[in-house]
Amino acid sequence: MKSFKIESVDKQNLAPQLQDKIDNLNKPKGSLGKLEKLALQIGLIQNTLSPKLNHQCHALFAADHGIEREGVSVSPREVTWQQLLNFCRGGGGVNMFCHQHDFFLRLIDVGVDHDFPADIIDPEHYDNLRVEFPIYNHKIAYGTKNFRYEAAMSQEEFDQAIEVGVQHVNDSVAAGCNVISFGEMGIGNTSPSSIWMYFFEDIPLDKCVGAGAGLNSEGIQHKYAILAESIENFQRQTGIESITPLKAPEDWQFVPGRVERQFFPAYAEEIIRWFGGFEMVAAIGGMLQAAEKRMVILVDGFIMTACMLAASQLYPAVLDYAIFAHQGDESGHRMMLQAMDADPILHLDLRLGEGTGALCAFPIVRSAVNMINEMNNFQNANITKYF
Amino acid sequence: MKSFKIESVDKQNLAPQLQDKIDNLNKPKGSLGKLEKLALQIGLIQNTLSPKLNHQCHALFAADHGIEREGVSVSPREVTWQQLLNFCRGGGGVNMFCHQHDFFLRLIDVGVDHDFPADIIDPEHYDNLRVEFPIYNHKIAYGTKNFRYEAAMSQEEFDQAIEVGVQHVNDSVAAGCNVISFGEMGIGNTSPSSIWMYFFEDIPLDKCVGAGAGLNSEGIQHKYAILAESIENFQRQTGIESITPLKAPEDWQFVPGRVERQFFPAYAEEIIRWFGGFEMVAAIGGMLQAAEKRMVILVDGFIMTACMLAASQLYPAVLDYAIFAHQGDESGHRMMLQAMDADPILHLDLRLGEGTGALCAFPIVRSAVNMINEMNNFQNANITKYF
Repeated sequence: MKSFKIESVDKQNLAPQLQDKIDNLNKPKGSLGKLEKLALQIGLIQNTLSPKLNHQCHALFAADHGIEREGVSVSPREVTWQQLLNFCRGGGGVNMFCHQHDFFLRLIDVGVDHDFPADIIDPEHYDNLRVEFPIYNHKIAYGTKNFRYEAAMSQEEFDQAIEVGVQHVNDSVAAGCNVISFGEMGIGNTSPSSIWMYFFEDIPLDKCVGAGAGLNSEGIQHKYAILAESIENFQRQTGIESITPLKAPEDWQFVPGRVERQFFPAYAEEIIRWFGGFEMVAAIGGMLQAAEKRMVILVDGFIMTACMLAASQLYPAVLDYAIFAHQGDESGHRMMLQAMDADPILHLDLRLGEGTGALCAFPIVRSAVNMINEMNNFQNANITKYF
Repeated sequence: MKSFKIESVDKQNLAPQLQDKIDNLNKPKGSLGKLEKLALQIGLIQNTLSPKLNHQCHALFAADHGIEREGVSVSPREVTWQQLLNFCRGGGGVNMFCHQHDFFLRLIDVGVDHDFPADIIDPEHYDNLRVEFPIYNHKIAYGTKNFRYEAAMSQEEFDQAIEVGVQHVNDSVAAGCNVISFGEMGIGNTSPSSIWMYFFEDIPLDKCVGAGAGLNSEGIQHKYAILAESIENFQRQTGIESITPLKAPEDWQFVPGRVERQFFPAYAEEIIRWFGGFEMVAAIGGMLQAAEKRMVILVDGFIMTACMLAASQLYPAVLDYAIFAHQGDESGHRMMLQAMDADPILHLDLRLGEGTGALCAFPIVRSAVNMINEMNNFQNANITKYF
């Protein structure tokens, strides 16, 4: 895998200066709560006292999953391509939020099990598109292999998927972008997310498996059984062990903020490759590249949080660049975030995917940056400062 | 007091039609969570399947409080006029958020203890303003009287303050506005808010009194003692009793959603008049008029939630029009909202006032309306609907 140069932000010297600037804005200290924390983080990311957000981009990666064949999802795989086509035509949730918050949308096929018409994917036809948005064609295969039996992708495919993410981040940077969010479309991708959470956060698998887009309790039971079998098979074939039991013991209790154990990055990479989807690995590549470029990364819901978790197993410093946008009401997502000590901006019970939670949170992130740049300080405002 | 004609929304016939439209948008049912609930509410408010948000306005009322003389606030009253002047010049938090979300800002002096220069308040000078925003001059008095000893305002002053709110809502409607938020500037106004909460929600006073803009525990103790004495004095003078003890008994437990007891509106009006600030009563008048005009009302933090609570004691149907925007981390505000069964949009630990929480939540409200109007339904999108 390509190596990345990701610096930690300067908490030593710059953080106190930023805090001082924030504390002297015309308001009681701390009274803009989460906005103040965001302003501090974004200042650190951009290494400046006057951060700016420019040309926001949303990269939506799409691919199919071999594990979908096991009936782990309520929708069949054809929904992946149907939805991607729908996004082309501007009819999805993601289009609506991109439009509202002025995000440049990139739709990227990394491995969808469908051949799209040439005039949607061929750059020669972009000037004469029948659709609102083209699909960037980076198809690696018609979906991953079924990780119940074998690795979802080869090492070469993994490297290719990482590279797709890198390339789209670089293209965004070239267009002037310094804040990026990632979204996904891939029927079945809650399954790899649950497994990554199990491996990387020491949380028993039954606590990591949820309803996805709408499974009933029987469906969840079936999904759990398939994933447990897949994990045992992976361990048998690779010799990579987990110290976490699959089923939580009766007295198991979740302890927030406890992700400390670091896999060797090589083990982490193997776990990501074995279970991941192309769209998820592309997002990981994009996140790592975005961190290398010191961009603000908006992290969406369950799937993208799992990708950020996986990315942080390879390069822990990537978390300095992550703004967690949304926490749904699914207990798995809550635990995943809490284990990373993440404090997400929104709690709107969204579970649509596509990166919609990250997009909805953008105006709050913008507010934080406006605050540190536009708000008067006490001296300018001639206000008696008593607090 | 002026009487209002406030209709309840049509939950019987229109609500199921709206729900049906929302359920057929191109997404798993319920997957846009809180946005779906907001879209439903706004459709009901506007009595339509295709709601629109037009010409959003923010009315910020400012006034001083007699009770400030008792040292119940960390800041002195001069901060009220200094801040209002700062808002004129565009240097406050409220300006920044109004600018970001394209709100028309009205700054209204209902009773500030200060004479502003004529070229800021006189409409004849508006064309040649030295400041960015004029102050609408509706000064009723130089602050309220001290409710530790007597009613904060006379019945005539109360009626005048209600009328100020009504007028500014009517002016907003005339400009094409159908969504309005209210903000306040008034040093000392957490004190009346706590007392209203005590009377209208049956919550012992010690649970209603918090740190305001930054009191320490000694300050909170002092504030509690002053407010308890003020309540006892009010009860002695008016004969209006409360069945709630001032101090919570050891075994007192808060039960969410339990506001049922309805004061006679005449009693409620007396409690509002005795303790309220001019800016708060103006906001109540504005809320009631906005509900009469079937507008969307964005309700900010502790003070504006207290005003909505008070308004609902006079006209319970006003709550149909209220979108609660933000819940801070102060336990008093959380309880006040829970007692009304409110489910606020944001949780950002804001405690700046000025209506900033309501403004920050606006893009989420906008997203809800975009969703119901712009998102494709399954039929149009050619997506297999399996869920």
